[in-house]
Amino acid sequence: MTLAHDDPEIMARAAALHASAVVFDGLSTCNWSRTIFEEMRAGGVTAVNCASLLWEDLRGGLDNVLFWKSMFEEHADLLRPVKTVADIHAAKAEGRTGISIGWQNTSPIEDRLHDVAIFKDLGVNIMQLTYNTQNYSGAGYLELTDSGLTGFGREVVHEMNRVGVLCDLSHVGEKTSFDAIAWSKQPVCISHVLPRAMHDVPRNKTDALLAACAERDGLIGISLFAPGLRAGNDATVEDYIDAMEHVIALVGEDHVGLGCDFSLDHPRPGPYQNYASRDKGYARNLTEFATAKINKPRGISRTNEIPHITAAMLRRGWSEATIVKLLGANWLRLLERVWGVAA
Amino acid sequence: MTLAHDDPEIMARAAALHASAVVFDGLSTCNWSRTIFEEMRAGGVTAVNCASLLWEDLRGGLDNVLFWKSMFEEHADLLRPVKTVADIHAAKAEGRTGISIGWQNTSPIEDRLHDVAIFKDLGVNIMQLTYNTQNYSGAGYLELTDSGLTGFGREVVHEMNRVGVLCDLSHVGEKTSFDAIAWSKQPVCISHVLPRAMHDVPRNKTDALLAACAERDGLIGISLFAPGLRAGNDATVEDYIDAMEHVIALVGEDHVGLGCDFSLDHPRPGPYQNYASRDKGYARNLTEFATAKINKPRGISRTNEIPHITAAMLRRGWSEATIVKLLGANWLRLLERVWGVAA
Repeated sequence: MTLAHDDPEIMARAAALHASAVVFDGLSTCNWSRTIFEEMRAGGVTAVNCASLLWEDLRGGLDNVLFWKSMFEEHADLLRPVKTVADIHAAKAEGRTGISIGWQNTSPIEDRLHDVAIFKDLGVNIMQLTYNTQNYSGAGYLELTDSGLTGFGREVVHEMNRVGVLCDLSHVGEKTSFDAIAWSKQPVCISHVLPRAMHDVPRNKTDALLAACAERDGLIGISLFAPGLRAGNDATVEDYIDAMEHVIALVGEDHVGLGCDFSLDHPRPGPYQNYASRDKGYARNLTEFATAKINKPRGISRTNEIPHITAAMLRRGWSEATIVKLLGANWLRLLERVWGVAA
Repeated sequence: MTLAHDDPEIMARAAALHASAVVFDGLSTCNWSRTIFEEMRAGGVTAVNCASLLWEDLRGGLDNVLFWKSMFEEHADLLRPVKTVADIHAAKAEGRTGISIGWQNTSPIEDRLHDVAIFKDLGVNIMQLTYNTQNYSGAGYLELTDSGLTGFGREVVHEMNRVGVLCDLSHVGEKTSFDAIAWSKQPVCISHVLPRAMHDVPRNKTDALLAACAERDGLIGISLFAPGLRAGNDATVEDYIDAMEHVIALVGEDHVGLGCDFSLDHPRPGPYQNYASRDKGYARNLTEFATAKINKPRGISRTNEIPHITAAMLRRGWSEATIVKLLGANWLRLLERVWGVAA
């Protein structure tokens, strides 16, 4: 099978688009290194939500901030911290990649609502309400029973709204997600997800939920996670674009973006995948993903290949205006609105 | 005895000076309330190092930041957070009081050196290396034996230097203080102190230490703490000016400022004084200050009377240029230099 990026003319147009567009990746959990940061540059990634944090407590949340501080110093030529949308535009202008610190769990705030504001000050701009299981705020998609958004969770969502943190629902349970969308005063995102209508696995989201998110001006970041695509490990970048096309047909092209979900250079199997797959990082195993072989779709195996997504969009005949939205402009509009409340 | 502020002509000149000068108070630990904040405005205080934190751990350090966040919201008409010298000038222009969050102990960083940077991000701009006893970094002035600056303390001082936190030595032991002055790459301060040469009590500092601080371009903030003045509870604002005059004669007028040490509206005796006086806030009692009656010098009993200090300076015939330095310009120069390293 010939893929779009085998076509030099298409790739030249993709390169030109990347040179001008802001490219925002809604989720990454790589084993961070200079190699990864250089690939982000090669892949034309303007900014990315780096959200390796899964189960950490307060101390772990602070250490995650400190980790990024050390990366920003060590790789200042490649990276720029992102606290505002202006920082993303500055990253584009400077030829660096903007790093927005994110969480895949509100576990670091523990039982302290107001620590949302502490971490916002420290540069945590996107917080997934729960990871795979129950926490103080609600249920993850692998919990036995979905509690819905808890009373504390309501306060957490409103505190995120107040201080300018974007609420992410990717690993969150269906009922908790519907509750959070309805309760939030601001749009939310599902940063890295695939549609259950195309492949019925628990991690994928129903069309009803995706639509509800978009109806409140939220954004759906389309994930490259092969187990969520019907073709699984045989998937290509075309299957990825099919999933994106499905969601665009459902919610419109203004509410869709990238959420690549790269988790590169962690040994597989290995400690990070084990940490991800077990409840609280160490307890019962919840998924087969710690040990299963998981490819990225063919043609888009690493960050430097993100222009192949652009090439595939171009080959479908999507307009450049549409592609610019999908690559990052939709993310920027949402971030401007949600982050913009902060002084 | 007639004091300077009984003279209307002197008070008019003091008021005019306060209208133009930046007034920086090097330490305050009041029982914070709108009353206190209004008195700061009435006293012409441009900005103040608010350092009520004495023995807190990490959680307590975060809660102290959150307390100030809530004050900044609730009293936004009176207060402005200070992270830079530009914020102090803005506070002056806006007619608000700038609040710089300070610590009287590095206890909130616990054994985590890099948390200095976390708290700098959160607005903690001045950190006293130790409170009254030993911590990981060195000894307080009431410790049995002064360890000197520890190995960890060396790293803490350099981390303060690196991220732009001013190191304060007021309650620090003599040996640890000399070590810190010599080790620090930046000038340090003794934010609230009186000269031992005028009254030989442990909390006061020797001329040799005050001189060493100034020789490295540091600053000595003169305290209103009556037990440190020879006249004790009978002291007047004139005794305070005598103490300041002694230090100026020793180190020159460029290295002296205000460090009022107001601790207003805490019940006496009461929980805050008890917390201050006991090791770690609860263990053995270290001082008589929790139960002793302690007046402020007559004429300067509360923050709104700070212009009485200015009046007393004017009556001594000090030039307005000198007074402007002592009221705040010396502090500004030091803060610009130490804080200015931060990006």
